[in-house]
Amino acid sequence: MVSGMAGLRERKKEQTRRRIAEVALRLFAERDFAAVTMTEIADAAEVSRATLFSYYPTKESLVLADVGAEDLAAVVTARPAGSTPLAALRGYYRDLAAGPIAELDREATVTRLGVIFASPALSAAANSLLYRQRERLAAALAEEYGERVAAIVAAEVTAAVLTIQERYFRRLVDGADPVAAGRGLADDVTLAFDLVERGVAGA
Amino acid sequence: MVSGMAGLRERKKEQTRRRIAEVALRLFAERDFAAVTMTEIADAAEVSRATLFSYYPTKESLVLADVGAEDLAAVVTARPAGSTPLAALRGYYRDLAAGPIAELDREATVTRLGVIFASPALSAAANSLLYRQRERLAAALAEEYGERVAAIVAAEVTAAVLTIQERYFRRLVDGADPVAAGRGLADDVTLAFDLVERGVAGA
Repeated sequence: MVSGMAGLRERKKEQTRRRIAEVALRLFAERDFAAVTMTEIADAAEVSRATLFSYYPTKESLVLADVGAEDLAAVVTARPAGSTPLAALRGYYRDLAAGPIAELDREATVTRLGVIFASPALSAAANSLLYRQRERLAAALAEEYGERVAAIVAAEVTAAVLTIQERYFRRLVDGADPVAAGRGLADDVTLAFDLVERGVAGA
Repeated sequence: MVSGMAGLRERKKEQTRRRIAEVALRLFAERDFAAVTMTEIADAAEVSRATLFSYYPTKESLVLADVGAEDLAAVVTARPAGSTPLAALRGYYRDLAAGPIAELDREATVTRLGVIFASPALSAAANSLLYRQRERLAAALAEEYGERVAAIVAAEVTAAVLTIQERYFRRLVDGADPVAAGRGLADDVTLAFDLVERGVAGA
């Protein structure tokens, strides 16, 4: 009974969180990201400023909450015994391509990417989140590969994954069937990790 | 005699170009990039606004003129017969590490990186220049590898090179001897291209 209530509360919080981000995205798309204030967003989403800030501490986080948020370091450190870091990362991205990414709302995703690319502040913040993700991955890989190789492999993996995600989004923007685009993404994950593991010569 | 005069004119232009960038960098470091105007830069460098704009069409270009400017696509397309694209790129970066990069002014470089990281507009512009460089490299590689592999390999190469340059700059900031730092960079170039060519398994 208590856990049911807690579950309901969690779902309500998740709904509010999602609704606020949707309202904010609409405002950012209608006007400029820099021109919209947190007070306007709170008003439009019909929540208090305190509630807004408890969900989203910065205006940037309304758009970038999930950018660089995949915990790749944990994928590496919590991998099953006997599997390599790259096998664990490959499996993680294969699952992502088969599930969550393939189920993204096409229109919302395209709007969101448009807002990010139109705002230098958001673009810079997104890059800095991706940079920090890469640094954490490099630290996790260092145990297996040593610090020098780990820094380069982390850069290769994150750049390759970003590139195939861009290719996927571009296919969606160009009007590709989401199922076909998702299948293309899964194939690209295989190719990207083949390249990182075995190189251009061996892939 | 004519070519001597033309050479002198070119050297004078290059000096003016360099002096303007130095003056601008000093102003950006003293205050905020966003707060400094092109008119102030022209006044401080003792040139007209027209001269300033003929050298640097945008305020961003005063700091980012050489970011992503290496013509990697030309390195690939103009490579000697019988050599692979990756061998040509490896040779290009090996030469860069041995020469121009190792001769950078440490203090000016550190100031410049500080100005870029402190300004979201500059960070975003730098990333967009690097993005375009990657796209041009991908197009040049597509002939050899096909479009899908080329997109991923271009991402790997540019990310790996950026990472080893960051490691080099960090060593300089930490006070490393420039000659030792330059040798470390050359070793990292070898490692990075071994990884791209033969993968983690083969490097």
